[in-house]
Amino acid sequence: MNTQDPKPRRILSGMQATGELHVGHYLGVLTNFSRLQHEAECFFMVANLHSLTAFYPNYPDAHRFIAPMVSDWLAAGIAPEKATIFVQSDVPEHSELAQLLAMFTPVSWLERNPTYKDKQANTEKDLDSFGFLGYPVLQAADIVLYDATHVPIGEDQLPHLELTREIARRFNHYYRAGKADVLTVPQAILSSFPKVAGLDGRKMSKSYNNSLNLAESAESLSKKFMVMKTDTARVKRTDPGNPENCTVFTYYDFFAADLKEEVNQGCRSAALGCVDCKKQLLTRFLPAMAPFNAKRRELAEKSGLVNDILHAGAERARKVAAATMARVKDSMGLVSRYSL
Amino acid sequence: MNTQDPKPRRILSGMQATGELHVGHYLGVLTNFSRLQHEAECFFMVANLHSLTAFYPNYPDAHRFIAPMVSDWLAAGIAPEKATIFVQSDVPEHSELAQLLAMFTPVSWLERNPTYKDKQANTEKDLDSFGFLGYPVLQAADIVLYDATHVPIGEDQLPHLELTREIARRFNHYYRAGKADVLTVPQAILSSFPKVAGLDGRKMSKSYNNSLNLAESAESLSKKFMVMKTDTARVKRTDPGNPENCTVFTYYDFFAADLKEEVNQGCRSAALGCVDCKKQLLTRFLPAMAPFNAKRRELAEKSGLVNDILHAGAERARKVAAATMARVKDSMGLVSRYSL
Repeated sequence: MNTQDPKPRRILSGMQATGELHVGHYLGVLTNFSRLQHEAECFFMVANLHSLTAFYPNYPDAHRFIAPMVSDWLAAGIAPEKATIFVQSDVPEHSELAQLLAMFTPVSWLERNPTYKDKQANTEKDLDSFGFLGYPVLQAADIVLYDATHVPIGEDQLPHLELTREIARRFNHYYRAGKADVLTVPQAILSSFPKVAGLDGRKMSKSYNNSLNLAESAESLSKKFMVMKTDTARVKRTDPGNPENCTVFTYYDFFAADLKEEVNQGCRSAALGCVDCKKQLLTRFLPAMAPFNAKRRELAEKSGLVNDILHAGAERARKVAAATMARVKDSMGLVSRYSL
Repeated sequence: MNTQDPKPRRILSGMQATGELHVGHYLGVLTNFSRLQHEAECFFMVANLHSLTAFYPNYPDAHRFIAPMVSDWLAAGIAPEKATIFVQSDVPEHSELAQLLAMFTPVSWLERNPTYKDKQANTEKDLDSFGFLGYPVLQAADIVLYDATHVPIGEDQLPHLELTREIARRFNHYYRAGKADVLTVPQAILSSFPKVAGLDGRKMSKSYNNSLNLAESAESLSKKFMVMKTDTARVKRTDPGNPENCTVFTYYDFFAADLKEEVNQGCRSAALGCVDCKKQLLTRFLPAMAPFNAKRRELAEKSGLVNDILHAGAERARKVAAATMARVKDSMGLVSRYSL
């Protein structure tokens, strides 16, 4: 037993709802979420304030993506009895804490944030807003508000979490409650979020128009599989192919790993044609997604259930958030007890 | 009757509590507040979040200045039956709205803010914080949260109010409720806040150690008056003086305007000595402050009254704030109604 680690593990993670979810989200994030909920106390947040940093001019339209996205979460096995599922803007304490953390977060820390300049350089959007510059401060608030001990992230997000850790440490430096730290400094759980390829071989993304959406019918998905990019050097059925250059082959990892070696040999020897290879994959892919699809249809008929779950989640989240805010405000001297 | 102006006048103003109030505050701000409360619906706020932007490292100590300051407000005639008196951090909607306004406020607007670079250049304090850069965004939130139609400011603060107006206009541009504006674009009430001189002739300020504090006894104030700077060119009692170079003479404006001409002639002709001039002023100053002092002593004996007033004020403020936030969030699409 590790006596150095008295705190139970608590996890905060979030996703933005800016469009329909696809198979890339399912394999990359949702299966991870539904595994984590058995390993720790989880808070899964719809990060709609973060969406506003980039989508502010037309955000009101994006609101409609929230319920379908959460429905996908539930269909993927994320259970409201296990994890607290809520929408960020339903918990005003995120903004309240961000405002307080802003007071001692140097602008230079934010300007140095590696994704800040990157994102500004690589988009048509107007990302000059004060809210966008302060994205990492709000993110720090999201995490420390729930005393998260761990945050599941990919290696490329380590600089962001380091910023959260710096902000939490700085708070603890200025505002201690006696000898105890007020805020929990979170650690990374380095998760390998698999990069799922889209139809054209590039990363699956709505903006590339190459995605297999979770809302699509089996028919539509099957058609898309049949046009998925394979080894372009294999022109005729009798040409031998190279699975390393084939998008379809990458899907065997997720749905038919046991057949990989056979497919590899069949492709290289031209014994297996691309059409048969895709059909074989579909016999695994469609059944693998069937429970998800069934649950999704079931949820679609329970009108109001997602709404109820998000309201109950926000209530649970606010209880934890309120306790943190009381501690934070007390240590900063923002206390509603005024005596002469 | 002006049919162009259907909204009743509503005013938001605030003060930071970072030390004891002095006569400069009384003449410059409090008399203004107590006049305004008869002319409009007033919200007077203790701006403790703004104090944090500059005083974050040792803010917990500053909390103790709030109740005495509000007691001075009450003693100066600001009435909780007329005006809503509250502490900013007791109304979390200030931070929540600031976070939303931040989303579309360009960083460049804030960097251009004339006082931003000024203040950074003229202080020993670390003013590199994200919160300090965002000071005008929080200020905009303070004002529009209460649908303030008017804000009493000095001419030097016009650029700040213009920033609030720009932010409110930009919000109304992006997020309209049908044809109607969501936020009220406030107007300035250009108030002449008299510059009250301290003992040494410079502006009265705690940091110059030249102030007449409201908490001081009549004895202490009288002693200070007797050493207040007069015309340094008047060395002997028989030398004629120049009232234009005399700090004491500026006080006749506030407390004995009817005697100014007489004092002017007496000084210039050396008929009136400085000691007698000061004694004469004191016979007006002390009685003028007597009601304030009596009320202040009375309040000191009602332990808990200031606390009760601030709690009731925060409750009233939060009702108005909640209504604005509902309108703001509705128009931005941040609504807790999630349907598939």
